[in-house]
Parts: sequence; C-alpha cells; structure tokens
Amino acid sequence: MAATLPDYPILGRAIDGLSANEIGSLQSRRLVAMVNYVHALAPFWRRKFDELGLEPGDIRDIGDLGKLPFCTKKELQEDQAENPPMGSYVCTPPAEWHRFLTTTGTTGVPLRRVYSKRDYAFAMQRFEAPDSVKPGEVYMLLGPVDGLIGPTTTFDGVSQNGGLIVPAGRLDTRAKIKLIEDMRPAVISGTASYLLRILEVADEIGVDMSRQGIRRLGSVGEPGVAVAETRNRLRAGFGVDAITDGYGMTELFPLGGGCKGSGDIHIGCDVAATEIIDPNSGEPLAAGELGEAVFTNLVGDTQPLLRYRSGDLCRLATEPACPACGYAGPRLAGSVQGRADETIFYRGVKVFPTAIEGAVRALPELNHEYQILVDGDGVLPNLTVRAETLESAKTLGAEAAEALKKRLADGLKAAIRVNAAIELLAPGTLPRDDAGGKVRRVVDKRNRQ
Amino acid sequence: MAATLPDYPILGRAIDGLSANEIGSLQSRRLVAMVNYVHALAPFWRRKFDELGLEPGDIRDIGDLGKLPFCTKKELQEDQAENPPMGSYVCTPPAEWHRFLTTTGTTGVPLRRVYSKRDYAFAMQRFEAPDSVKPGEVYMLLGPVDGLIGPTTTFDGVSQNGGLIVPAGRLDTRAKIKLIEDMRPAVISGTASYLLRILEVADEIGVDMSRQGIRRLGSVGEPGVAVAETRNRLRAGFGVDAITDGYGMTELFPLGGGCKGSGDIHIGCDVAATEIIDPNSGEPLAAGELGEAVFTNLVGDTQPLLRYRSGDLCRLATEPACPACGYAGPRLAGSVQGRADETIFYRGVKVFPTAIEGAVRALPELNHEYQILVDGDGVLPNLTVRAETLESAKTLGAEAAEALKKRLADGLKAAIRVNAAIELLAPGTLPRDDAGGKVRRVVDKRNRQ
Repeated sequence: MAATLPDYPILGRAIDGLSANEIGSLQSRRLVAMVNYVHALAPFWRRKFDELGLEPGDIRDIGDLGKLPFCTKKELQEDQAENPPMGSYVCTPPAEWHRFLTTTGTTGVPLRRVYSKRDYAFAMQRFEAPDSVKPGEVYMLLGPVDGLIGPTTTFDGVSQNGGLIVPAGRLDTRAKIKLIEDMRPAVISGTASYLLRILEVADEIGVDMSRQGIRRLGSVGEPGVAVAETRNRLRAGFGVDAITDGYGMTELFPLGGGCKGSGDIHIGCDVAATEIIDPNSGEPLAAGELGEAVFTNLVGDTQPLLRYRSGDLCRLATEPACPACGYAGPRLAGSVQGRADETIFYRGVKVFPTAIEGAVRALPELNHEYQILVDGDGVLPNLTVRAETLESAKTLGAEAAEALKKRLADGLKAAIRVNAAIELLAPGTLPRDDAGGKVRRVVDKRNRQ
Repeated sequence: MAATLPDYPILGRAIDGLSANEIGSLQSRRLVAMVNYVHALAPFWRRKFDELGLEPGDIRDIGDLGKLPFCTKKELQEDQAENPPMGSYVCTPPAEWHRFLTTTGTTGVPLRRVYSKRDYAFAMQRFEAPDSVKPGEVYMLLGPVDGLIGPTTTFDGVSQNGGLIVPAGRLDTRAKIKLIEDMRPAVISGTASYLLRILEVADEIGVDMSRQGIRRLGSVGEPGVAVAETRNRLRAGFGVDAITDGYGMTELFPLGGGCKGSGDIHIGCDVAATEIIDPNSGEPLAAGELGEAVFTNLVGDTQPLLRYRSGDLCRLATEPACPACGYAGPRLAGSVQGRADETIFYRGVKVFPTAIEGAVRALPELNHEYQILVDGDGVLPNLTVRAETLESAKTLGAEAAEALKKRLADGLKAAIRVNAAIELLAPGTLPRDDAGGKVRRVVDKRNRQ
C-alpha cells in the first residue's frame, strides 16, 4: 500500500449528523488506511506488528481493532530515548514538522510530540471554543500555554475567530484576579483545582467572582469537573452555569469536549476510535462499565498511535445517541472519573481519589483543599484524609470539630466503603499551587518503607 | 483631521536601502499623521497636549519631535488603573483587539498592551528571525512565551517561515539541555544570564554545549550581550560566533535587532522615531553620548506612544550609515548598555552594573554568577562585589585566593573608578534562576535603613 494517507476532509460539527452506520464505515476506511500507513513508515509499529505475527491485511474494518497491539506512554518514552528526538514512530521528515509540543510535567522525561500542518488542522477542528467567543470578547487562559496542546489550540482557535485570547499564565493569582476584574472575560479556563484556588484567593482579598460577568468556565487537565460537588462549588463561586470540559492528550489530539446539553464528553469519531478496557485483562468493557480509555488515531500523519492506553478511567454513555444533540459517536459519561495510576489499592478495595474529593467538597464547612495520605505497612495500611476548615470555621469548638470529623468520616464511608482517619486542618495548612498546573493529591508513603 | 492612519505598506528590509533624506521625510509624514490620530482618539494624549498648550498643527515634521511631551511607564500604569482595562490611551474598540500582551514581571502591576491585526503585522515585520531558520531546522525558546512580545513574534515568525519552534520554557534546565542534545536546534534564544546558566549546568552534567551544532544564539531582555566579556563566554561556551541581540518593548513594538555585520542594534526607522536624551534634563544628546533611549511609535493604531522613555541606557552609533549594510537609520552602538533604574549612585559616582559584569567575567577563575551589594549609610555607603569561583578553583589556597581577590579589585577599579570590597564565594552559593527570566544583580540595602 502507498505510504500516504488520503486527503480527508475536516468534518467538524458535521459528525453530529452521522448515523452509527456511517460512523462505522468511516472509521473502518480510516483505520485500514492508518494501519497500512504506520506499517509502511514506522519501524516502531512494524516491530510491534511482527511480534504479534500481524499483517496490515489482517485489519479489514473497525471490528478488527482488538487485533492491534496496545501502546503505552512508557513504550513511547523508551522509543524516544533510543531514537531521539521523536522516536521510531514518527512518520514524516523534520521539514514537515509544524508544531512541537510536550506532555505536562516540568522535570523528568516529558514525551515529545510533533504535528504537521495537516495534523494541527485536525487538532484545531476538535477544539470547541472557537465558536464560543466573538470579536470584542475575552477568553482568558489561567495556566501556561507553552507547548501544551489544549492551551495552544485554544490560543489559535480564539485568535482565528476574532476573540481576544489573554494568556495569564505568567501572572500570580492576585494579578490574575485583578485582570479578570478589569478585562471581564466571557470565558476563563484552567484546571478545576486552580479555578477553586482563584475562588479562595478572591475571597481573601474581598473580590466576588460571581459578579465578574463570566459566562463560561473551561476546565482542563483534571477529572475535577466530573465530581458533582466540585462542579457545584465552581458554579456557585463563579456564578456560572456552563462548564466546558476539554479532553485530549498531547500524544494523540484534543479529542473532544462537553456538549452544551449534557455532562458527557463527546469524542470526535472522525479523528479517533475509542475503546474502554479492563486495565488488567485488556478486554473490552460494555458501555456503562468503568475502565481505561484507549484511543486510536484515525487521522494524523506525524506520530499516529494505535490503541494508546490513556490511563484515564471512564465509562461510555449507555444511550446509543446523545439525547441533547443526537451525536451517535462515543461519549464519556460524566467526563473522566480519575487516573488509573492514582487509584489507591487499600486493604483489597480500589479507592478513587475523585470519590474522596466528592465527600470532602460536599461539606460546606470545609474549604477546597484536601490531601489523601496512605501509610503504615503494606498488609495493614492506614488511609488518612486531611481536609481544611473554612476560615470562618477556624475557631470551631472541640465538640463541633468532632461532629464535623464524624460527618466527613460517614460521608467517606458511604462513598468509598472504607474507614478513613480524618485530620481537620486550619485553613492555609496544605500547600497551594499558584502556577495553575495539575494537582496530585495522593501521598502514598507505602512504597518508601 | 481624520481619526485614522494611512494604510502604510510594510517595508521590512527595504528600509536598509533608504537614504537619510528619505527616512526623514517618511518619518515626518508618519509623525504628523500619528499626532493627529492620538489627539483625535486618546483622552490621555489630548490631556497631555493641553497641559503644554500644544496643538496637533504645531507638529509639522520630525524636527518638531522635541515639542511633544514625554511619557513614562508609571504614567501608563496609573492611566490603566484609572481607566481599565487598557487605559485612556487606547485608540481602537475591543472588537479590533487581536493580541494581548503584558510586560515582564509576574507580580505587581504589569502593563497591559493590545495589538490590532495591523499592529501585529508591523511587530512581525521588525522581527529578524523568520528568515533565519528553514523548514527542517529548529529554533528553541528557552524562556516563557505567554504574553511576552519577543517570544510571541518569534513563535509566529518561525512557524510562518516553516521552521520548527520549540517552546521549552516549562522544562527545567536539565530537561532543556537534554532537548538541545536531541533536537539539535539551529538557534536557541534566552536572556544572557540564562544562556550562561545553561553552560553551568551542562558542565555539571558533562555535556559540551559547543558540540551541539548550534549556529546562532538569540539574546533578549538583558543588556548582557553588550558586555564583551559576557559575549566572549557565550561564544566560547556554545562554540557559536553569531549572537543576535533582539530589542524592543511590549509597550511599543519589537524595535529591531543586530545586523549580521555589526554589534549595533538597528532600530526600524519606519515604525519608530529614536532619540537619546539626558535622563535628568530631557535634552537630546549627540551620537556617541550615553543617555536614555526614547521612542515614538510612527505606526500602530491600538496604543501608540509618543516619546516613551524606555529606561534603557544607550548611545547612538556615530557613523552616518552602518558600515556593514548601509542602513542610514538609528543604530544603538554596541547594544543596550544598562538600565537607568539599575544605575548605582555611589559616593558621587555613577556605577553601571554592566561594567562590574565585565570585570568579573574577564577573570577565567570566576564562574558566571555575581551580585552587587550596596549597604552602609547614605553618606558613606559600601560597595561589595560577590563573585563565585569556578568549581575547579574551589580549593584555592589562602594566598592564591588573596591574589585573585586583588586582581578582581584592580579590574573593578579600572572599570568603575571605585574601590569595591570583594567577597569570593564557593560555586553554587548565589541563587540561580532556572525559569529563564531577567536577572537583577544589584542588592541595594541603603533604602531600607
């Protein structure tokens, strides 16, 4: 087969009108072309196919997706280390590289990703914001842009559509709040943790964020918006009903976002195939079951990936089409539920940090910060949830504090079926992240013993 | 007069071929149009004109520049605070704002700047890099991009010309060095301080930066490259002969850059008028004399500034035209010499930190780091220069250390005509900036007493 991909049209919102059959045949054609393309051009994929005794001709339609090998971030990191700079899975020569991006994380070995102009056009297509701010309106990015796929496509999308993009990542939290007061952005976008941090600091300095005229929040990089209690705090604090959840991975593409009528994330079926698998067995799971999302690039000529294990825990929506917009492609029900690598294996039970987040943030006496501490030995570990009281609850009497601890312990028991120790902390005790990055809240000390 | 600016062509490198007369008449026409434009549209400028009893008609050609009022960053900050978000000197409505930028500094009140599409096209024109990297080549930005004019125009310029721009600002210094080793950039760009920091860390981890195939350094945001000894260290450390000095201000435009054949910065005479003034009297200085650079936007419809005091200490080249390329417009001889607000007034003598930098970096036994400490009372203050020895000179005997201190003291005396106390420190004692920002090296404790 020829080592090029067909010249696919960019479908954009037209995918909302496709039937399940049309999606199936579009995905089948694109998958077959992609398999032939990577086999012809990428030593990485040829080696993986050979290990399974697989030929490109074995893949005849989207139903054969399960025959393909998985790939993981660790494999890609190793391949890039052995074949710098971009790994042996890069399919185009340097002269065609148009955009360079890296995965999040400032130290260690972030994964590198290049996009051709063609790839970047597909990435832009999947981005939901361009049609959301008009000329004269402001879209403010609270975190850094540099080399991150979400903010980069947002930047270009908003600019192309005539809105004003305000990259505020370099400013400290107070300066960002001042900028929001003065610029009156229509949309602000950041991690859920950082949006809550904005509310906390605004409260300290006496600024009411619900009166700034913000009409939409963009939430990125964290599963936070999937937690109802977190979403409630954001809605109340910013006086905003609309929260858009952007979803994607630098390694692949921006994959999709929330639809206006539902809390589900719609994955662009024209750019990627979606599976949810059991993270242990690798077997596909039915709609509604919680498992790891796995994506396959159907377009993209630079570094396309087959069956890339995202590490994100999700479930597919069970209705065949979105009740709000009719989209028949895959939808992540209620957004991403958590990260597979943040799951706490505790006394034979799987505990998801997002469940703990929900229990903490359900209590109005507690502020947004919490930390999950696991220590003790491996056989009988201890789980401690450390949460801060609100400033106004700082001088809680001993009896009231005990009652609050008991309510949190009960809430956690109901949410995760585990007895956790509770530590109530004074406001401001836990570290804050003012850079606006992703926050890891689990401190597992068992590995160090 | 009509409140619009003519539709100027973008001249680009064509200004190199203009005669002094042609430049004069071009600047005269553009200045007259600009004065009428800001008077018609900006309350800020109308107020300043009124205070001087000045009418737009009083400005007939570029020779009348001195009749116009100065403006300062402090004035603009105050105006933006009183007239948020952009001040009463903004001339276009929000729907025409295309790019939002801020001055450097992460806390306090950075100045905000908007560019229309028209303004941004002029800004891009003044940027020298687009023609410097070809498709297949890499241009790596070591510092942040977000909302800074230099990196933003570099990003877009390189991308438009088909080179690959690698924004590495989010990575730590070791990860940046690894990225340089793997990506083999043709050009890397950062502050002079940070480029030296890269050399220091590369040395610690055993990477020879002179063997990475870099063919050009871009130096921005600091006067460092004007110091011969700093330039020498950069050239030797990176094995690079070409260092390009980019110059500009977010408030105005990127104004120019080094010409290939000289160490002078060429200011684009089509986009700005240049004066060098005595910082105290405000009187113009002759070519060759050291003073404060003052710039007037000749194009730019969003927030144009007249006679903006840059705070940068420079001298104009004395030859009427550049010996290397024939450019007859203004050239900053040997780049920017320092900042007016970093000048140390010490026992009746003006001391420039760049002179101290030169004396420190002339001694091969010292590494790149230094700090200038001024303390004691205001009448008889003390000046101490703290410098670090190289790792290899760590175990210097007492006698050798004394000899080294004496050589540095002698070098400083020759450079600044002042007796400074010397402190030799072990390598790694002074704080390092791994974020890649501008570094302030003067610690003046006199104000706190």
